Parts: sequence; C-alpha cells; structure tokens
Amino acid sequence: MNVTSNTVSPAETVRSDGVIASGAYVDGRRVANIAIEEASSWRSKPGHVVWIGLHEPDMSVLASVQRQFQLHDLAIEDADHAHQRPKIEQYGDGLFIVARTAQLVDGDIKFGETHLFVGEGYLVSVRHGSSISYARVRERCESCPRALARGEDYILYAILDFIVDNYSPVLETLQEEVETMEQQVLANGMTQAQIERLYLLRRDLLRLRNAVGPLVEVCRRLEHDSLPMIRPTMQPLFRDVTDHVRTVQEQIDSLREVLAFAFEASLLVGQAQETAVSKKLASWLAIIAVPTAIAGLYGMNFKNMPELELTYGYHTVLAIILIACGTLFLRFRKAGWL
Amino acid sequence: MNVTSNTVSPAETVRSDGVIASGAYVDGRRVANIAIEEASSWRSKPGHVVWIGLHEPDMSVLASVQRQFQLHDLAIEDADHAHQRPKIEQYGDGLFIVARTAQLVDGDIKFGETHLFVGEGYLVSVRHGSSISYARVRERCESCPRALARGEDYILYAILDFIVDNYSPVLETLQEEVETMEQQVLANGMTQAQIERLYLLRRDLLRLRNAVGPLVEVCRRLEHDSLPMIRPTMQPLFRDVTDHVRTVQEQIDSLREVLAFAFEASLLVGQAQETAVSKKLASWLAIIAVPTAIAGLYGMNFKNMPELELTYGYHTVLAIILIACGTLFLRFRKAGWL
Amino acid sequence: MNVTSNTVSPAETVRSDGVIASGAYVDGRRVANIAIEEASSWRSKPGHVVWIGLHEPDMSVLASVQRQFQLHDLAIEDADHAHQRPKIEQYGDGLFIVARTAQLVDGDIKFGETHLFVGEGYLVSVRHGSSISYARVRERCESCPRALARGEDYILYAILDFIVDNYSPVLETLQEEVETMEQQVLANGMTQAQIERLYLLRRDLLRLRNAVGPLVEVCRRLEHDSLPMIRPTMQPLFRDVTDHVRTVQEQIDSLREVLAFAFEASLLVGQAQETAVSKKLASWLAIIAVPTAIAGLYGMNFKNMPELELTYGYHTVLAIILIACGTLFLRFRKAGWL
Amino acid sequence: MNVTSNTVSPAETVRSDGVIASGAYVDGRRVANIAIEEASSWRSKPGHVVWIGLHEPDMSVLASVQRQFQLHDLAIEDADHAHQRPKIEQYGDGLFIVARTAQLVDGDIKFGETHLFVGEGYLVSVRHGSSISYARVRERCESCPRALARGEDYILYAILDFIVDNYSPVLETLQEEVETMEQQVLANGMTQAQIERLYLLRRDLLRLRNAVGPLVEVCRRLEHDSLPMIRPTMQPLFRDVTDHVRTVQEQIDSLREVLAFAFEASLLVGQAQETAVSKKLASWLAIIAVPTAIAGLYGMNFKNMPELELTYGYHTVLAIILIACGTLFLRFRKAGWL
Amino acid sequence: MNVTSNTVSPAETVRSDGVIASGAYVDGRRVANIAIEEASSWRSKPGHVVWIGLHEPDMSVLASVQRQFQLHDLAIEDADHAHQRPKIEQYGDGLFIVARTAQLVDGDIKFGETHLFVGEGYLVSVRHGSSISYARVRERCESCPRALARGEDYILYAILDFIVDNYSPVLETLQEEVETMEQQVLANGMTQAQIERLYLLRRDLLRLRNAVGPLVEVCRRLEHDSLPMIRPTMQPLFRDVTDHVRTVQEQIDSLREVLAFAFEASLLVGQAQETAVSKKLASWLAIIAVPTAIAGLYGMNFKNMPELELTYGYHTVLAIILIACGTLFLRFRKAGWL
Repeated sequence: MNVTSNTVSPAETVRSDGVIASGAYVDGRRVANIAIEEASSWRSKPGHVVWIGLHEPDMSVLASVQRQFQLHDLAIEDADHAHQRPKIEQYGDGLFIVARTAQLVDGDIKFGETHLFVGEGYLVSVRHGSSISYARVRERCESCPRALARGEDYILYAILDFIVDNYSPVLETLQEEVETMEQQVLANGMTQAQIERLYLLRRDLLRLRNAVGPLVEVCRRLEHDSLPMIRPTMQPLFRDVTDHVRTVQEQIDSLREVLAFAFEASLLVGQAQETAVSKKLASWLAIIAVPTAIAGLYGMNFKNMPELELTYGYHTVLAIILIACGTLFLRFRKAGWL
Repeated sequence: MNVTSNTVSPAETVRSDGVIASGAYVDGRRVANIAIEEASSWRSKPGHVVWIGLHEPDMSVLASVQRQFQLHDLAIEDADHAHQRPKIEQYGDGLFIVARTAQLVDGDIKFGETHLFVGEGYLVSVRHGSSISYARVRERCESCPRALARGEDYILYAILDFIVDNYSPVLETLQEEVETMEQQVLANGMTQAQIERLYLLRRDLLRLRNAVGPLVEVCRRLEHDSLPMIRPTMQPLFRDVTDHVRTVQEQIDSLREVLAFAFEASLLVGQAQETAVSKKLASWLAIIAVPTAIAGLYGMNFKNMPELELTYGYHTVLAIILIACGTLFLRFRKAGWL
Repeated sequence: MNVTSNTVSPAETVRSDGVIASGAYVDGRRVANIAIEEASSWRSKPGHVVWIGLHEPDMSVLASVQRQFQLHDLAIEDADHAHQRPKIEQYGDGLFIVARTAQLVDGDIKFGETHLFVGEGYLVSVRHGSSISYARVRERCESCPRALARGEDYILYAILDFIVDNYSPVLETLQEEVETMEQQVLANGMTQAQIERLYLLRRDLLRLRNAVGPLVEVCRRLEHDSLPMIRPTMQPLFRDVTDHVRTVQEQIDSLREVLAFAFEASLLVGQAQETAVSKKLASWLAIIAVPTAIAGLYGMNFKNMPELELTYGYHTVLAIILIACGTLFLRFRKAGWL
Repeated sequence: MNVTSNTVSPAETVRSDGVIASGAYVDGRRVANIAIEEASSWRSKPGHVVWIGLHEPDMSVLASVQRQFQLHDLAIEDADHAHQRPKIEQYGDGLFIVARTAQLVDGDIKFGETHLFVGEGYLVSVRHGSSISYARVRERCESCPRALARGEDYILYAILDFIVDNYSPVLETLQEEVETMEQQVLANGMTQAQIERLYLLRRDLLRLRNAVGPLVEVCRRLEHDSLPMIRPTMQPLFRDVTDHVRTVQEQIDSLREVLAFAFEASLLVGQAQETAVSKKLASWLAIIAVPTAIAGLYGMNFKNMPELELTYGYHTVLAIILIACGTLFLRFRKAGWL
Repeated sequence: MNVTSNTVSPAETVRSDGVIASGAYVDGRRVANIAIEEASSWRSKPGHVVWIGLHEPDMSVLASVQRQFQLHDLAIEDADHAHQRPKIEQYGDGLFIVARTAQLVDGDIKFGETHLFVGEGYLVSVRHGSSISYARVRERCESCPRALARGEDYILYAILDFIVDNYSPVLETLQEEVETMEQQVLANGMTQAQIERLYLLRRDLLRLRNAVGPLVEVCRRLEHDSLPMIRPTMQPLFRDVTDHVRTVQEQIDSLREVLAFAFEASLLVGQAQETAVSKKLASWLAIIAVPTAIAGLYGMNFKNMPELELTYGYHTVLAIILIACGTLFLRFRKAGWL
C-alpha cells in the first residue's frame, strides 16, 4: 500500500507522479494495491470497487486514469487545473464532482479543491492546493468494512462528509475571533489593526461562502436527482450531508451579518468618541481661556487703572480666576463633557 | 409517573437517564406509565398511542427508543447531539422533526432544540439545552381527552403550537426594549452602553430569526405535503401553526428593520451633536478671543501709545470689550450656535 | 336597523354585544333586519343573502354566528382576537379572509383589522381596533341593487375595494410629509426633531407595508384560484382590486426608497455643515491669532527692544496687524471658508 | 382628417372633446376619417381596421367608444383617470394595456400615461398627462402601408416601440448629468446644491424605473402568451420591444447603482476634506502657539529675569521663535498636513 | 485569404466593407475563400460549412449576408447597430446570439459586442467596437480539423469559449488593483486619488457584470434547451462554457463585495484618523495653554504682587511650567493621544 499522510501531517509521502493510494476492494476489504494501469480490469470483476487517490497528478497519470475509466475529455481537462466552482456533472454513466475544501494551517484559512470521478466500480479523487488528505477517510472506511461494502457511492458520501466536517473547525475559529473582536469594539471602538482584521475576516467569510454555497446544490442533486450511480438507499446519507452543508452556510451567513452589525456599531462608537474628544477639547479651552483673558486685561499698560493700585487687587483677581475655572470645571463634568 | 417540571420551574425532576415521561394513551386518556422497553408492544395494540418525553437522554435510552420504533440511524445520531437546523425528514413511515425553541431566563434569551420522532402510534420528543419542558403540553392535552384522542399527529401539533407560542413573550420583550431604546436614541443620541445594547439586540434577533425562519418551511410541509402520518383532517391545525410562525417571522423582520432605522437615525443624531459641539466651541473661542486680542495690544510696551495716557482709556477699552463680546454672544445665540 | 356610524363618524351606535348591522337581501334589496339566531334560516331561502357586520363582538355573538354558518373552530378563534396577518383560508365551502385597515385619526395612522367569513348566501364582517365602519359600503351597495344582486362575492369585493381605497388618503398624507421634509433637509440638514420625524415616517411606512403586502397575495388568489364561492364573472372585479393593491404597494416601496435617499442626502448635508463649521472656526482662529502673537512680542520686557522707542512704532504695528488680518479675511472668503 | 400634433409640438390641435384622430384603414391605407359613432360599422367590414387616438377625453367620448367596441366597464373606468401601473389585461376578446411614458420638457422629465384598447379590427389609444402624441407613429405607419396592412396588432407594436424609444433620450440626459456630477464629486466633494441634485436624480431614476419595470412583464406576455388578438407572426416584433425595454431597465439599474457609488465616494471625499481641514487647523494653531507662549514668558514682570537685561536677548528670542515656527511649518508640510 | 489581424494586433487588415474572412470548410479543412454572394451555394453542398467574419460591416454587406441565409429583418437590424444586451434568439431554423466582449487596451477595459448568426451549414460573426478579432479562433480551429469537422455548432462553441476566456485577464487586472488598493487603504486610509480609483473600479466591475451576467442565461440555453441547430453531443462543451461564465460571474461578485468592504473599512479608517487628529490637536493645545496662562498671570501690572519680588520667582515659574507641560505630555502619550 502506498501511503497515508497528507500535506498537513508530514507523514504522508506523495509519490512524485501524484498517486497517493490505489486499491481494489471487495466487500469493504482491500484485496490489492493496484497500479493505475490495472484499474480497469480490477473494476470489471464482479463485486470489486477501485478507489484511487491522487494529489496534483501529472497529466500522464490523469491520461492513464482517463483510459482506464473512459472519462470525458472536458472532465479530465478540468481536473488538471484547479479553480473550478463546486459543481456536479454527469458524463454518460459517470459523475464528475468538484468541491472546495478549507482548513486551518497555522491559524490561516487555506482553500483547496477536490475533484471526484465516480462510476460503476470506481472512485478517483484528485486533490489540488492545500486540500486535506483523504487518508483518514480511507482508514475510517477500511475500519468499518460493512459500510464500505456498500460500494463507490458510499465512498463518495464518506469523502463529501469529511470535506463538510472540515469546514467546522475553520468556522469555529472565525466565530471565536468575531466574538473577541466584538467585545473590544463595543468597549473601545476600533484601532487601525482591528479594522484591518475586520476587513480580512469579512473577506475570508466571503471566500468560505463561495466554497460552501454551490456545494449545497451539489449535495441536493445527489440527494434528490435519480442519478444512475447513486442507489436510493444512499439518499438519506446524502440528505444528511446536505443538511450539514446548509447548517454551515447558515452559520457563515449569520457571521457575515454579525460582522456587518459590528461595522455599524463601530461607526457609532467612533462617532461617539470623536464627539467626546471634541467636548473635552472645548471644555479645557474654555477653562484655560478665563485666566488668559483676565490676566491679559490687567497686563495692559494704561496709566489709570485703579484696580492695579489696590493692595489685594492681585489676590482678588487670582481668587476670581480660580472660582471661575472651578465653576466651569464642575459644570462641564456635570454635563458629561469632562 | 416521573414528570411535570421543566428547566424553568424547578419542580420538574428529570430522571438521570433523561426520561421525563412515558405513557400509553387510549382515546385520549393515559392508561399506563410504561417503560421504554415496553413501548413497541403497547404501541402495536389497536387504538394505543405511546408518548415519550426525553431531555438530553443517554445514548443507551436513545438506542432503546430506536429499537422500539425501528428509527433510522442518522435520525438517532442527529438526536444525540444538538445544533441542527429546524427541518423535517421522512424516514420510511416515520417523521423526524427538529425545531429550535426560545425562552426568557432572567431576561436573557436562551435557545434550545427539540427533536421529534413521529410514527404510527408513537411520538418521542427529545429536548436539548434550555428547551422548555412539554409537561404543560401534556397536562393540557390530558385535560382535553377528546382532542388528544385524535392521535399522535395531534400531539405533534400541540407541541409545535406550544413551541411557536413560546416565541411570543421573547419577541414582546425585545419589542419593549426596542421601543425604550428608540425614545432615548432620538432624544439624546446613543451612549456607548446603548450602542452595545443595540448591537446585542440585533444579534439576538438574528438568532431568533434563524430559529423561526426554517420552521416556516417545516410547518408548510406538514400542512401541504401529503405525509403518510398526518391525516388530512389535521391540516387546518398545521395551517394555523404555519400562520402563527409567519406572523412571528414578520414581526422579527419588522423589528430588524426598525433597528436598522434606529442605527441610521442614531448616526444622524450623533452627527448633529458633533456639529452642535463644534458650533459651541467656535462661538466661545470667538467671544474669548476679543478681550485677549485687545488686551494684548494695550499690553505692548511702546513708548508712544497715546491711548495709555487717557484718563478713561482703560474704562473705554473695558466697555468696548464688553460690548463686542455681548454682541457676538447674541448673534451666535440667534444663529442657534449657542 | 342598528347601523351606519363608525369609529370615525361618532354617529355610529355599536350595540353593546358588537352587532352593527344584520340584514337579509333578495335581488340586492334588504328585505329584513334579522337577528343572528335567524341567519341560517334566512340564508337557506333561495336567492337570499345574509350580510352581518360585527365590531369586536362578544364571544357569545361569535359562537352564535358559528352555529348559524357551521364555521370552523380555528377561524372563529382567529376572529376573536386581532393581530392576524392578512390571509385567505378555505374551510370546507367557506372562506375566511383577514385584512389590515389603515386610516388617519387626527393626523396619526391607526391600523385595524377586518375578518371576513364568506360562504354560500352569507357574509360576516368582524372589525377589530380602529378598523373603519363598512356602513358606507352597505349604503353604497344598497343604493345600487343591480350590483348587489350579484350576491355575497360582490359584497366581498365591495368591502375589499373599500379597504384598499382607504389606504390612499393615508399614503397621500405620508407623501406630503415626505415632500415637505425633503425640501427642508436639502436646504438645511436635519434638526433633531426632523430626524425623529424621519424615523417615525419610516416606521409607519413599514407598518403600512406589512398591512398591504400580504393583501396582494389574498387578492391574487381571489382573482386566479378557482375558489368555489367566487363566480368566474367576478374575477375582473377582483383583478381590479389586486391591481389597486399593487399600485399602493409600489407607492409605499417608492416612498420607502425616497426616505432612504433622504437619509443619505441628510448625512452628506450634515457632513458638509460640519466641515463648514470647522472651516469657519479655523479661519477666525487664524485671523485672531495674528494680533495676539504680534502684541505678545511687543509686550515682552526686554531692556533692549529698539522698535519700542520709535515714535510711530505702535502705529506701524497696528497697521501691520490690520493689513495681515484683512488679507487673511479676504483669502479665506475667496476660498469659501468664510 | 383631424389633427397630427402633440403636447410637445404645439402644432397639434386637440379637439375639445379629446379626439385627436380617428380613421379607418384597409390594406394599410386610410380610407376614411370617421366619427366615433361610426367606428363599429367600419370595423366590422372585412379587412378594415379602425384606429382612434384620444387625449384626456370626455367621459361621453369614452362611453361612446365603449359602446362601439363593447369594452368592459372596469377598463373604461381605468382609462378615465390616470395613475395606473403598467399592465396588460384581457377582457373577453379585447386587450387593455397601460404604459407609462416619459419625455423631456425643458430639461425636466415629465411622465404620462397611455391606455390602449385592442381588439379584432380596432385600436384605441387614450393619452393622459404629458404623454407624447402618437401622431408621429401614425405618420410613420401610414408612410409604410405594407407594414400597417398587418393590422391592429402591428399598430400596437408600433405604439409600444415608440413609447420605449422615447425613454432613451430621457435616459441619456440623466446619464450625462451623472457623468458631469461624478467628475465634480470626485474632484471636490459635494456642495449642498450637488447633494440636492444627486437626491433628485435618484428620485427621477426611481420614477423612471417604476415606469419601465412593469412594462417588461407586459411586453413579455405579448411575446409569449398566446393571446387571441396577437398573431404568432408578430411575436418576433414584440420580442424586439421586450428586449429594448430590458436594455433600458438594465441601464436604469446601472445608473442607480452608479449613483449609490457616487454617494459613498462623496461620503469618503467629505470625510477626507474634514480631516484635511482639521489637520490645517491643528498645524497653524501649533505654529502660532510658539510665539504666543514664548512672548508671554518674557512679558512677565519678575524683578529678576536675567535674560531681559541682555543686549541681544530680544533678538535672540525673535530668532528662536522664527526658527521654531519655520521648523514646525516644514514638518507639517512634509507630513502633508499643510 | 483576407484574414488574421485584429484591432489589437495591427496585423489584421479589415477590408473597407468590413469583411474580415469568409471561407468554406469540409471536414474541418478550408476548401475555398468565398465571396459572400456565393455563400448560399457553398453552404448547400453536403458536408460544407461557411464561416464568415465581419467587423462593423456596411449595411450592403449585411444585406447580402441576409439574402444568402434568409436571416430575419429584426436580427439584421440589431446586427447593424451595437448596444444590445447579451441574448439568444431563435428565428425559424437560425439562431441569433449577442455577446459582450471585454479586453484590456493600454490598461483600460474596452467593451465590444459580437453578434453571431448560426444555422445549418453557416456561422456569421459580426464584431462591433473594440471586440477582439476571432482570427485566433479561426487559426486554432483550422489547426485541429478533427474538432472543426463537427460543424457550425463547434465554431459557435469555440467563439463563445474564446469570448469568455478573454474576460479572465481583465478580471485579473482588476483583482490585482483591488489587492494593491486594499493594502494601502488599511494602512493609511484613502487619498482623494484612491477614492476616485475605488469609484472607477466599482463602475468597471458593474459594466463587466452587465456584460457577463446575461451571458450565463445564453450559455445555459445552449446547454439545456433542445435547439434544433445544436447537436446533443455538443452539450458538454456548452456546459463547460456555462461553467466558465459562472466562475467569472462569481469572481466579479466577490470583487464587488470586497470593494464594498473596502469602502466601509476606509470609512472607519478615515473616522479613526479624524479622531486621532482631534486628539493630537487637543493635547498640544492643552500643553501650550499652560505657559500662556501662567505667564499671563505674571504679566499683570498689579502694584502688589509679592512673587515678582522674589529672587528666584522667575526661575520657579519656569520650572513649574516645564514640569506641568512635561507631565501633560507624558499623560497624553500614555493615553495614546500623542
């Protein structure tokens, strides 16, 4: 058996041509690790299912896969370069499915793509970018042969379920960040760094939404359309995935709305702070203006200024200034300006 | 019978395994309190309906329930952990329904979840979180055997109706808060605390909307789809619930829009206040600048400043300053700046 | 006959049990004022139509009406307490319709509710809150027996038409207010009182929209669905009402959008005013700073300050100050800051 | 022949009863100018089409038209007073169509209404408000008898096409204004007059949209629904009109969005200007504060102030002040504050 | 052969009448360069396909094309003047398709239009404005005769695919600009020039969206509707184009949303900057006010001011001023105001 690690766990050793795993299964048990060139013959044996996992494969590998399963040119072309929207397409008696994956790598969201070819007796997964390895799906499936024995549509379900499950930790991280931010914003308004964070959060959520949104339609079609390669008994499983994707989508939409609220609240907090600063400025200017104006008056050089001759003139003026400033201070404080 | 208190009224004693009530009914009257293990045999007797109420049950209890009524693995899995969207699913001849509940606990909105399994001759309710106890529904139903005699779909209606009824006090509390806030905002603009309150109100309304919104579709399907376990004569009842949920939804949407208006009004009030502060600041600076500038002039030490020698020079200057300041003050007041 | 005033015209005398009018009609002419208890027998005579008008009736009256026409429990329950959304429901061979009414009372918009039961040979209207009396509809119908002779569906049309007609004066009043406000806002920005008015206008429009919006669907169903009690020949009439409601809805939506524009324009005007105040403040501070700074210099007590000895030093300084201030003043004015 | 001018070209003389033109056509050529009372007999001759144009006609004229073509009461009622939404209604074997017209009169947008009755062998147009005269349509049609010979549905097409064509100059004028405004706004922010203009533009666009929007549906129904009086061969023509209306609608929507962008840009420009003013204010205050503070120090009257005795004390202080102010000025300029 | 340059590559020589290329193909190989007048005869030979490329052709050329292929008057009229919305129309057994093209010319987005006539055995492309030449499509098709041999629907696919491919560089340029801008905005807020750029970006994206949006529907119809001239085997190809257009549309929508976020972030940054300026202003005013006020006091000319006589009075006051200013400075710095 060739390999079971992934881009995250460095244990996974990807073969240089991009083949990660390739096995033939009977009754949910792996009976052989096969070469891609033998896939067609294994697949055609009764009760056999071939499951191949690729990661950014060479075109030669893809071409070999295409020959084995008679895949459509366009689907292979799509599988060769990433940047497809999540979609489901039926080519003859095969399905081609694209899903976007999301995972946290060192706190950042990394998006990847997985392309799936499913048909009678085979499933091929092609990963692009930082798409998570399906080694864990394979392990889990192999540890439960009864379920895996149901065939290639069960593997399809297991992989889609795994992809959707992997959105959750990403979403939770975003949720926590939003909660931390909302407390800070409401208490102190936003710093430049927080505005940037808010902006990036909104952009990440937008991307996550673009990944998850079209997947709802993909799952819905697997659940409702009577596609030839999906047995009716599998439909409750796909309904479960649909449901899960919808829950994720609702949570994303809620977070997006909450961030919009946070933006608006932050605008109000900012406005309130600006006004508070203006009020403080005005108050202190008023208080300082009193001694300046009065002292200015008695600094004039008129010959005849009777107050200047008074013994306690200076002290009286000092007292007046202190009382005036004190009164102003108290009134501003009472009005909430200081 | 081990029943009839809830998370709100501390009188309810939940059994440690999560079973709250479990009875068999004939013609709307409880004929026995049964063990879950006997449920299947009671249910299969003609005219008998089994009604079981659980609160965050052990997996063992759920497994027992599953065996009694042959419930689908996925539904049981869903029922084991909360955080489902409101939905309705048909598994064979059984229905699985998820609804979100909302109630006020010490002035805060607490959300919960209720999962319902309904089939020929049985209804099982599974509560999660601070979902309200259905003891009151049971009491009300038992006090009116004629209605209850209609069977398990009537119980389903009674529980859904109760859930929807419980949204109203939550909504009314939010409505009152909004009204209190809008008066304050329009009179004085928003304080930091009110901005926070506005933000939290919007978030609570968003959550309430997420609880109520998908329930419209659930009720609509109970009303319109010809589901095997809902008799046609029950459809007016479910139409009534649909109608009620829609009214609640409309009220939530209105409140959400009103809060958006309040945000915008508050922005304008804040802007008006900021301008008012600036105008006040400018006015007082202008008034204080007059004595400062004039006094400064006569504080200069030029040898030849004829005014300084005048007997009443000082008094004249004082008078000029007073008149100038008074005139400015009156003009600013007239212009509404002071 | 106990009829023909309404909550607006104090001439209407509502009987204490809530019965306002109750008549039997043949060929569009009232042949008898009947007691509710006789309604069923009158209605079953060939060619007879019973028309009953109630205003917040006692439960006993409603129960009596229910018995006479075999109305559904749920519809009667709805009719007993207000706060329903506009809707149309079919119970057996009867229709239950809810509409929200709006009228101006002393310049304020008052909302009410009207519930209508229509079936073969009868129409019962139940008014709640400040819903307008249908005495005028009755008068108008009775004055045109040919139209009224068409039966209970014509009465239904006449009442719905009347309700929709009554939205117009409300809407016109709002429209005038909006126009008055927009002129003020664009000229001077918004005062606190105008912000409050804008806010209340938006809330009123929201409420009006909630009243009118669902009514479109009610009318559309009366026009399109082949309901048993609506004859095909009446459908152009209901189409006319649908059209009218849609026109009202379009006007409400336009007004709502115009108010949103007004809010945004007001934000810009407010911003422009704030900037204008800042510019004025800055300009005057600059002008006043000149004499203060220069005078301060010559107020210094240095022994050796040659300018102080000059015969015309003081006059020169005064001239410099005047010229500097004048120049600044002209430049600020030219730049539009003053 | 009575008349061919319109409200724009003063050449049109409207008869006092509102009849503008009334002719009978065979093979696309006018064979007689007829009185309305004769319309029915002309219309029933094989191959004859009657085309009548009215402008705010007397009720008596409308009644006469109604008798001639057996029009529905409700349609005639609608045609008597304006303020209808664009719509299409089928009464028996006749169509009733309402469209809103828009034209520029002295640079202002004037809205009008046109009501059209179309049936086997006749078309009646009723104009309200400043709706454009269809004399030009008549001229154009008469100059091309081959097209006109197709009958009343061709006339209908010609009039609708003319109405939609007339939106274009209105839209172009608005477009030019928006472009002029956007350049000014981005360069200098908005003056109060421009804010008002922006507001009015948005309101005009809203009205134009309300005129054009529902017309899409009218044209679409003429194109798709198999209406009895529209021959299948005419459908490409109506599809062309639909297409044209949609293009107009798209342009309106784009302009509306562009104006929303302009509003937001203007808010940012305004904010930037406010900040620039504040920065200038702060800079000059700082620069002026230096001489004021220093001069104040040496204006103190302490006995023992050694600096005052220095021969070049005054000159030194002056130099210090100049250097400090100059340094500040340069730093502020470098920081972009001045 | 008169071919292979375009408005971008100056190598393309457009014939003065607008004909760029005109060839007859058999089995994917060009067998003759034909005159438009011969097109009909070539086309009718079995297995022959005529492919004509025009660029803003004379009406005479269009008329000739129309005669050759019996095209509909309205489609030819449309093809004569640009400014159509993207659409697909079926006239008899021919298709008329309008698409908007976008390309970068010297860093600016230039929009163009392409009209396509497709029918049994022919395809005519008519380019308007700065629509890209299809010479490259022709070259590519001719270099792969096996694909081209499939016929006129393959050519249609190739052209549409080329149009959609050409959106990508435009979009990438916009994307890069947005990314550059977002970094600047978050760091420093927006300059007037950046606000203008943001505005223009939003307008360009709006236009691009108007070009791409309706094309989704065009492609979807080619993929799903069973149009007579599109063979079922071609549908996966058109599905591929639909998919591509949808991806482009999603990217445009994302960019539009990101720019809206950037606008909002920029508003917050601007607000934060304004507040920061106010805080700085207030801080420096407070610091400068201290010496001014104190020095003013000791500049008064009272006879009896004991402090003035003290030997170190002056020095003490200086020290007090320095300490006060220093303390203020440190406190403001600590509070983040300076």
